Formats: sequence, structure tokens, C-alpha cells
Amino acid sequence: MKFSKKIEQMDHSPIRKFYKYAADAEKKGKKIYYLNIGQPDIKTPRIFFDAIKNFNNDVLEYMPSQGIPELIEAMRRYYERHKIYYDSEDIIITHGGSEALTFTMLCITNDGDEIIVPEPFYSNYSIFIKSTGGKIVPLTTKAEDGFHFAKKEDIERKITRKTRAILLTNPGNPTGTVLTRAEMRMIADIAKKHDLFIISDEVYREFVYDDSPMTSFGELPDVTDRVILIDSVSKRFSACGARIGAVVTKNKELQDHILKLCQGRLSCPTIEQAGAAALYTLPDNYFDEVKIEYQQRRDVVYDYLSQIEGVVCRKPSGAFYLTAKLPVEDAEKFLIFMLTSFDDIGETMMFAPVEGFYETSGLGRDEIRIAYVLNVKDLTRAMELLKLGLEKYLALTTA
Amino acid sequence: MKFSKKIEQMDHSPIRKFYKYAADAEKKGKKIYYLNIGQPDIKTPRIFFDAIKNFNNDVLEYMPSQGIPELIEAMRRYYERHKIYYDSEDIIITHGGSEALTFTMLCITNDGDEIIVPEPFYSNYSIFIKSTGGKIVPLTTKAEDGFHFAKKEDIERKITRKTRAILLTNPGNPTGTVLTRAEMRMIADIAKKHDLFIISDEVYREFVYDDSPMTSFGELPDVTDRVILIDSVSKRFSACGARIGAVVTKNKELQDHILKLCQGRLSCPTIEQAGAAALYTLPDNYFDEVKIEYQQRRDVVYDYLSQIEGVVCRKPSGAFYLTAKLPVEDAEKFLIFMLTSFDDIGETMMFAPVEGFYETSGLGRDEIRIAYVLNVKDLTRAMELLKLGLEKYLALTTA
Repeated sequence: MKFSKKIEQMDHSPIRKFYKYAADAEKKGKKIYYLNIGQPDIKTPRIFFDAIKNFNNDVLEYMPSQGIPELIEAMRRYYERHKIYYDSEDIIITHGGSEALTFTMLCITNDGDEIIVPEPFYSNYSIFIKSTGGKIVPLTTKAEDGFHFAKKEDIERKITRKTRAILLTNPGNPTGTVLTRAEMRMIADIAKKHDLFIISDEVYREFVYDDSPMTSFGELPDVTDRVILIDSVSKRFSACGARIGAVVTKNKELQDHILKLCQGRLSCPTIEQAGAAALYTLPDNYFDEVKIEYQQRRDVVYDYLSQIEGVVCRKPSGAFYLTAKLPVEDAEKFLIFMLTSFDDIGETMMFAPVEGFYETSGLGRDEIRIAYVLNVKDLTRAMELLKLGLEKYLALTTA
Repeated sequence: MKFSKKIEQMDHSPIRKFYKYAADAEKKGKKIYYLNIGQPDIKTPRIFFDAIKNFNNDVLEYMPSQGIPELIEAMRRYYERHKIYYDSEDIIITHGGSEALTFTMLCITNDGDEIIVPEPFYSNYSIFIKSTGGKIVPLTTKAEDGFHFAKKEDIERKITRKTRAILLTNPGNPTGTVLTRAEMRMIADIAKKHDLFIISDEVYREFVYDDSPMTSFGELPDVTDRVILIDSVSKRFSACGARIGAVVTKNKELQDHILKLCQGRLSCPTIEQAGAAALYTLPDNYFDEVKIEYQQRRDVVYDYLSQIEGVVCRKPSGAFYLTAKLPVEDAEKFLIFMLTSFDDIGETMMFAPVEGFYETSGLGRDEIRIAYVLNVKDLTRAMELLKLGLEKYLALTTA
């Protein structure tokens, strides 16, 4: 039997590949503070569980392939409140943002077609793009610049006749960087000039701090036919396990193609859609408290990192991630050290090494991503452990 | 902006494309008996809803990418009771059988690689295979032969150096045909000789009538490394809306590749997995009553069809479908007639035209699939409507 070239060339998720070390450490009784994945500890709103408990059909049936009307309508209204105007048929419900991205790629890329992605990027983009035959053309950004990437010449230099789209996360994962409206305007102009799609992953839309403005690509009126919004309830409502996302576009041809794929897999989970529909009826002030909480956490992480000599990072404005350069050669080795050879009164912490978030080989080896998904007390302790661990690691490796 | 060639070449699901006619008919107050899709009316066991109501975590978290341990273990035991022996790591939970098939295809096919599929086949196979770059090589079967396809020379004639697998549904959809153990042995031998995977979609495993034996490809000891079982709770427990399936294989390399894709999409829905785990704890005698019900329904459908002059079909042994050849030129036109121009005291019925279940152009135009998913009373009325409608249609078209 033979396997496909594309799957053989793909790696395992860099976020999850260190779990075996974590599992071993836990077996030995070590307590681990997990800052490695974007699994928030924020309580999922009760309205979700109430909706599920109230589900009382006798038969758990397939739902319409594009999603249940209640959820689509609730999302339409949510966008409307954000001055992002979509019609019901523009919103197609998917198995998380993941399926939204996979379906988008299947619709727009032939084998070898190129997608421009600022790096470091959410590492699973690599799986969605490569498994469907596409090629990532990375646009490298740097910790020193706060990971800003919107430079016209740099982007245009990457465009070839095989380029199909620019894919970006805004607010950024793993960087926390938020695009300004002027940067978005420039990207929109490039997309128009070169006839590209803009795939804007905005699953962290609400998580923008210091009263920074957040613009959606859905707000720019002259590119509505080329904008593809990727969305999800996972982070917004701390409902990662629901696996409910959406692909949102005014491009009728794309809608039609995506619907073929949706029909192929029949429908998204019925009960989780009912729960998600309830979530989208929450008033916008639901986010006020959540935002304050995340902003405090960001400050804890940033303040700690700023105190450590040799660490390079800028204060990010959004999402719940911060990527920092550490004074180590290889953050993966440092992580394995943290899990296998370090503890402070039986405790350690876990971050995500960022090398796997770069397409360009060799970049990001000294960078780590902190997901600030624990409460301030636990987060403070986790950052203290990072500092202590780093001191020990440096003492050992530079001895 | 450009779209991929593969998506442009794909059609919409033939099962769902007639919905607009049905929706119009309902708007005009017509009652429709739906025998067009495999959405059973059997009640989903209460144990599913109880498990969901008892879910009481505060945070709806991501679960392990390969599925929750409770569900995997419950499935392992279920297989064991069927004398199908798998280890926990051989069972990977997916978003329905659909994702199990898509992931399998992504792992085994390069662009242009071939999958041999007996036709007529479950039409969404076409979407899973073509969207991932593969090519369907159909093995044509006939109503007159009860859609049996396991002829050694016919299968071997289809094998080229690009063939990667034989994909089959057993019991069959849309045919209801069940493979004999001897036929399976022969297919296994061919797969060994030509080094192919056997992808066996066994989601209808329990639905076998007249005490016919049902063998799983998982029972054949000498092909465990090349057998890929596709499974799902949808039909087995009348829980289509859960979207919980699995890909089951002892091939370690394939497991590893599929896990990459699973990690990419993070996890399957948490709550529906909890419900599915409960379903798999049901005792096997749960199916006794369900089987009796389906067997009665099959007899109603078969008896009705046998009485209509010019209809060709054999009594199927499994699943809950029957494919029959009607004395019409184009079953799609006949279906549109049934929805737009026919009623008997305000009622009509809907079937699935089978042309879209064939890869070979022009075949199956006069065939329909009946999904016997309504209770005997409604089913009888639906079949009566089919008979009446056909009489009127023939009177009009042959006048």
C-alpha cells in the first residue's frame, strides 16, 4: 500500500507533539501549568448548556448542510451589531474554523498554488493548506517589530501567478498583533490589484486591549467579493469543544462551491449548533468582563517577560497569545527540560515552541508562545516557573 | 480570483439537489413522504440525551484529537462482541463517517490516483474522492443481478498501477446488497495480490435481514494491515445529527498519518462524543427490535415494487435502501413531476434518483433509491403514492 506524498511531507502538530513528555511528568506526580494551547479556562456561558438540556427532539436528525437557520440568523445579527453586514446565505456553518479553512483551500487551490501567510502563523494552517495540495509562501515577521507584516513591497514581492490568497489571523495567533485599518486598506488594495482572495481568520475579534480599535475585513465595502471571513465560537465564548465555526463570504461562486463540500459531509452536529445559536444571543457586554480578565493576564505575562534578561518581545494588543524570543538556542530542548528535568516544589509549566509556527526552516527556534489562558494567580505562578526554569537551564547549558 | 479545478468539476449532492422543488411543494401545502434520504425515524436511545444532560463541566474544552477515551473503549468492546478485535489506538474518532473517508483519501491518494468503487455507490463518495484529488474507477453492477459486484475478473480488469484501494459499502447503499464471506475472501485476496487497501464502510453493519450472516472485513486475519473500516453512530443508533464516526485500522503508518489530520482540526465535538460513548454501552439486543422493524419495512417496499409492471429489483438483504429500475426514461424528471405536478388528496412522496450514484455517465437514469426510513403505515402510503404517481406519469409521457 502507498501513502500520498502530501501526507508524508506533513508533520505532526507542533502544539501537540510534546504531550508525551507532559504525560510522563504528570505520571511522576508533577503539576504542570499549561500555557501551551489556546484552551481558555473562562467558563462557557450557562446559556449554552441550558440550550442543550432543553433539546427535546426524539430523533437526533441531520440538519441543513449550511447550518441551522437559528444559528445563522443569530450570527448575522451579531455581525450587524459589529457593523459587518452579511445576509443569511453568506454564512455557512462548519466543524470549527478548521473545516472552514480546509473547505476554503479545497475551493481555491490547485496542486502547487500558493497562499501568502505572515509567519509565525497558527501552525495548523500548514495542515489545512498542505493536505489540500497548496503551498505556503511565508512573509516573515520579527519579534523586534511586534510581528507587524503589512509592508506593501514585502507582500508584493511574494506574489506570483500561482498566488491565490493572503491568509492572516487578526488579532494574530501566535503573535497577538492587531492590524490597523490603514494596514488592512493596503492589503485590500493589493488583493484587488492582483486579483487575490483575502482569508481573514477573525476568531479572536473581541479580544483587543487598551481600547485599540478592531476592524474586520468584512467592513471594507470594495472587497466584499474577495473577503472570506473564518469564524468560530471556540475562543469567543470559551466553547472550544463545540467545534462550531463558519466561513462567511459574499462571493456567490465560492458559496456555491463550499456548499458542495458541506453537502458531502451532510451537516454539523445538531446539539452543539443549538448551543452555539444560544451563545450568539448573548449581549455584547458579555465580553466586557472577559476582556478585562484577558488584559490583566496579558499584562502579567508581558511584565514577567520584560524582567527577564535577554527576552525580546513587544506588548501585543490582541488575542490571548504572546510570542517572545528567549536567550536560548532551541526552545524545544528548553521545553523538554522544563517537563523532564525541572520542577519547583513539584511544579513546572508548558509553553509552545514557535519554530513549528514558521514555514521558513530555522526561524523561530529561540521563540516561545505563551497562551494566557489561566487565571491571574495560576498565570503568575506559571510565569515564575518559566523564569526559574530558564535560569536553571541557562546555568546548565552555558556552563 | 480563481477556483480549483477539482471543485469546479464537482457536482452538488444528487440527494439534496431536489430540495427546492420539495420546499415549493410544501409551501403550497402539499404533504411529502420523504424516502429520499437515509434519515431514520427510529427514536435516538434516551441514553444519548441523558449523557448530554449529565455533562456538567464548566468549560466546554477541546478533547484529545483521536477522540475521548470513553468512546474509544466503548467502541473497542462493541467490536469485541462482534468478534472484531481492535486495540484502542486502532480506533480514531471523526466528524462522522464523512470525515473518516475524507481523511483516508487525503492519506492514500496523490492527484489522479484511482479508487475502485462498485456503482451505484453512496453519492457523497464522489465528493470525498474528487475533492482530495482522487479518481473513481467504477465497477458497474446491475439491478437484474441484485447489484452483486464481486467477480474476480471484473475487479482485476479495473486495476492499474494507479489503483490505491477498493472502497465498498457493506451492507450496500443505495443497493442494500450484503457481501457473502466468500466474496469478501476473494476481494481480500485481490487486495493482497495487488497491494491495495480495502476501505470497508460498514455503517449499516446491524441492518441485515432474513438471518443472513454479516461478516466485517475486520474479521479477516490476513488483511488487517490493509483494511480500513469506516464507521458511524448515525444509522446504527439513529443519531445522524451527532456527527460522530470513526476510522478503524491496524495499519500503524496510516494511523500516524490520520492523526496528523486529526490534530489539525483539534478534536470532535465534546458533548456529542459523550452521548456517543453512552450509545455504545447499549446491549446488542437493542438492535433486535430495530431490525424487525426495518425488515418489515423492506418487505412493504419490495412487495409494492414487485406489483408494479415494468419495475426491476431484487429483494435486498441489508441496510435500509432498495434500488429499483422503473419503466421511465429519466427518474429525475419523474421526481420533479411527483413534487410539482402530482398529488393524491394533497399528498406526494420523494425518492432519490440513482443517476447521481453512478460514475459512468448515462447509467441509472431509470433507477430510484427508496430509503425505508418511515414507519410501516407512512411507508405504505408513500409506496401507494409512488404507484399512483407512476401511473399518472406514464399515462402523460407515453400518451
